[in-house]
Amino acid sequence: MSILIINNQPKQSTRVRAQRYEYFCNYKNCYIFAMKKNKLLLCSNTNNQLLRTKQAMDELPERIRIKDIARLADVSVGTVDRVIHGRSGVSEKSKKRVEEILEQLNYQPNMYASALASNKKYLFVSLLPQHVEGEYWTAVEKGITDAVAAFSDFNISIKMCYYDAYDYTSFTSAGNAIIAEHPDGVIVSPTIPQITRNFTDHLNEFSIPYIFIDSNIPDLHPLAFYGQNSERSGYFAAKMLMLMSDKADEIVIFRQIKEGIIGSNQQENRDKGFRIYMKEHFPSCRITELNLHPKYPIEDEQLLDAYFAEHPEVTCGITFNSKVHIIGEYLEKRGIKDFNLVGYDLLKRNVTCLKNGSVSMLIAQQPEIQGYNSIKALCDQLIFKKEINCINYMPIDLLTVETVDFYLDFQK
Amino acid sequence: MSILIINNQPKQSTRVRAQRYEYFCNYKNCYIFAMKKNKLLLCSNTNNQLLRTKQAMDELPERIRIKDIARLADVSVGTVDRVIHGRSGVSEKSKKRVEEILEQLNYQPNMYASALASNKKYLFVSLLPQHVEGEYWTAVEKGITDAVAAFSDFNISIKMCYYDAYDYTSFTSAGNAIIAEHPDGVIVSPTIPQITRNFTDHLNEFSIPYIFIDSNIPDLHPLAFYGQNSERSGYFAAKMLMLMSDKADEIVIFRQIKEGIIGSNQQENRDKGFRIYMKEHFPSCRITELNLHPKYPIEDEQLLDAYFAEHPEVTCGITFNSKVHIIGEYLEKRGIKDFNLVGYDLLKRNVTCLKNGSVSMLIAQQPEIQGYNSIKALCDQLIFKKEINCINYMPIDLLTVETVDFYLDFQK
Repeated sequence: MSILIINNQPKQSTRVRAQRYEYFCNYKNCYIFAMKKNKLLLCSNTNNQLLRTKQAMDELPERIRIKDIARLADVSVGTVDRVIHGRSGVSEKSKKRVEEILEQLNYQPNMYASALASNKKYLFVSLLPQHVEGEYWTAVEKGITDAVAAFSDFNISIKMCYYDAYDYTSFTSAGNAIIAEHPDGVIVSPTIPQITRNFTDHLNEFSIPYIFIDSNIPDLHPLAFYGQNSERSGYFAAKMLMLMSDKADEIVIFRQIKEGIIGSNQQENRDKGFRIYMKEHFPSCRITELNLHPKYPIEDEQLLDAYFAEHPEVTCGITFNSKVHIIGEYLEKRGIKDFNLVGYDLLKRNVTCLKNGSVSMLIAQQPEIQGYNSIKALCDQLIFKKEINCINYMPIDLLTVETVDFYLDFQK
Repeated sequence: MSILIINNQPKQSTRVRAQRYEYFCNYKNCYIFAMKKNKLLLCSNTNNQLLRTKQAMDELPERIRIKDIARLADVSVGTVDRVIHGRSGVSEKSKKRVEEILEQLNYQPNMYASALASNKKYLFVSLLPQHVEGEYWTAVEKGITDAVAAFSDFNISIKMCYYDAYDYTSFTSAGNAIIAEHPDGVIVSPTIPQITRNFTDHLNEFSIPYIFIDSNIPDLHPLAFYGQNSERSGYFAAKMLMLMSDKADEIVIFRQIKEGIIGSNQQENRDKGFRIYMKEHFPSCRITELNLHPKYPIEDEQLLDAYFAEHPEVTCGITFNSKVHIIGEYLEKRGIKDFNLVGYDLLKRNVTCLKNGSVSMLIAQQPEIQGYNSIKALCDQLIFKKEINCINYMPIDLLTVETVDFYLDFQK
C-alpha cells in the first residue's frame, strides 16, 4: 500500500513510499488514517489512491499534542489539562514533569482542541430591548444566532431575554431572572448606568462575564464593548446635516420618549455629540425637539402635523434612534419635499425612505457584526482563553441614495 | 477500545461503544482514524481517551466521496473525475454508470478535495500600473499576496507584472510577455479599451481567463470585475463636494496627465460621473482643470502656484486619482485654509491630510479586498469550479476626519 507523507513545510508536499502498514480495519468502506506528530499518513482500503490532506494535517496535529504531552510525562490527559489551565489537583511531581515537557516542546495550548475534548456546556444569555421583526435589534440578534451556530461545536447555547426600554423595572426584573439562571456569560444592551449597575454588580458577584452591546458604560467594566462611539457619531451626524442644510437657523431633533425616558443610551450620547458640534460650529442655531411616543405610532402623525404647523420654517431634522422612517413616511404622505432628514440604521423602511428621497442620509453601524462578535468574545474568553479587545468601535458608515445599494450588496 | 461516533446532526454528538477494531498500526505514537460516509471514528493507541472531532468530520467526508463513487461504479477515481469535469477519455458504459450513481447520490463535487488530490500547478499573472511602496496599488497587491498565501495548498503562484500607465506601448509589450508565459489566469487593471482589447483578444485565443480589477470594460467580457462603479462614485463625490462648497460657482479638478494620457479609466469615469451630477444640479458652475504631471512631482508646486494665482476665487476642488495628498500638502505648505478638497483612497499621506484638515473628505474602495477576491475568483473558476459573480462593485465609503479612525480600526 502506498502512503503519502506530507511534511509540515510551507510549500512542498513530498510523496514517498513509506513502510507497509497492516490493513487496520475490515469494516466496509472505511478509510484509514494514521497520524504521528507532524505527519499525516493516509490511505484507503479500497484502492491505492493517495489523497493529499495537508489541510487536515494542519489542523489535527495541534489537536493531539496534549496527548503527546501526557504520554511523554507519563500522566493522564486530565493532569496535563489541569497543569495547562492552572487548576489544582495535581501532585507537585507530576506538575513539574508536565511543565518541563511543555517548556521543551514550547507548547502553545490549543484551546480549540481542549474545548472540543471537553463536555462543558455554556449557557449565554442576551438581554436586549423588546422589539418586533424588522426593527433594529433583529439585525443584532441575527448576528448572535449566526455566531451561536458557528460555535455550536463547543456546546454553547443562547437564551434571549428582553426588557422594556422605557421601563427601568423591566430591566431589573429581567436581570434578576438572568442571575437566577446562572449563565456562563451575558450580552446586554445597557439601560441607564444606575440601573445597569445593579445588574452588573450581581454578575460580578457570581463572576459572570458580560459584554455591552450598542452602548458602553466604561465605569461598569464590561469584558468587551461592541458598538459605535455614539458621541462621535452624533457629532459627525451634525456636521453632515449642517452641510446639507445650508446653515439652517433651526433644527428639529425627533425623539422617541415615554414619560421622560429616552430608552437608549445611544440616543442620549448621539444627542450629546450632536449638540457639541452645534455649539462649536453653529452656536446660534436653534434646536427644537419633537417627542414622538415609542409605543403609539398612531399618534405620531398628529404630533408631526402639530409640530410642522407651529414651525413651518424648519427644513432639517435628525433622529438618533433607528426609526427615521416614521418621519420619512410622514413627509412622503404630506408631500413635503426639500426637508433634510438624517437618521440611523439600514432598516428596510429607512432604506426605502432614503431611496424615495424623504431621508437624505443614513448612518449605519454593522449591527450583525456587533451581535456576532459579542458571542465570539464570550467564546474567546471562556473557551479559547484568548485575549479580548475591550473597546470595539464599529465604523460610522454614511450612506446616501447613491451609495446604499453598493454597501448592501457588499455586506452580503 | 472505545470509539466515538459523531453523527452529522446539528446539535448533539452521541458517544457509543462501537465494535472493537483491530489495532491497526504498531508504529509508536500513532493515532488511528477510521472513517465511513458520514461518521468519523477516532481512537488513539496510547489510551482510551476520546477526541471529539466533529470539525474534522464535517470536512473529511466530503473529501472522500469521489472514491465512494469510484467504488460503487467499479471504475477508477480518475474516471469519476473525468466524468464530473466533463473531460474525454471515458467509455460510454463507464460514463453512464458513473452518471447514474452521481444522480442517485445527488452528488455535489467537492472541488476542494479533488484539487488537493491533483498535482496541477496554476500560474497566475497580475498586470498592474507601475507604482512605488505606499501608493494605491500597494494595497491591491497586499490583497493579492494574502490570497495567494491563503490558497497556497492548491499550488497557485503569482507573477506580478507592471506597465507604465502613461505609455500604451508599455501595456502592450507587458501583455505580450504575459501571453508568452502561458499563464492559467490573469488579473489586469485595464488601460484604455482599444489597447486592452488587443491583450484580451490574445488571452481569449488561448482560453486564458482574466479578471479586471479597478476599472471595468464590460465589452471585453472579463471573467469577473472587482472595483468601484467609478461613474456613480464620481457622481457621489460631486454631491459631497457641492454640499461642502456652499454652491460654489467654480470648481477645479486636479488631474494627473502626461502627453494627453490620463492613465486610468477610473479617473476618466469618475470625472464623467462628476460632470453628470454637475450638469444636473449646478449647470452654471464653472469647472476648470489643472493638469499635474504624474512623473515630475517637483513641478507640481509651480503648477499649483500658477493656478491659484490665476484663480484666487476658487475654494473647492477634487482629484479622481489617489494622490490628493499632493494638493493637500501644497495647501498646508502655503497655509491655505478653507479650501474644500475631496479625494480618493486611504493612502497614509491622504489620511494625514484628512486629519490635518487640508483634505475634507476621502472616498475609499477596499483595494485589498479587490486584490484578494480577484485571486479567489480565479481559484473558484479554475480549481473549485464554482460559479462566479461577474460584476462586483466595491462600496463607496466616505470618510471624514471624524470617522476615518473607526474605519481603519475596523478593517484591521
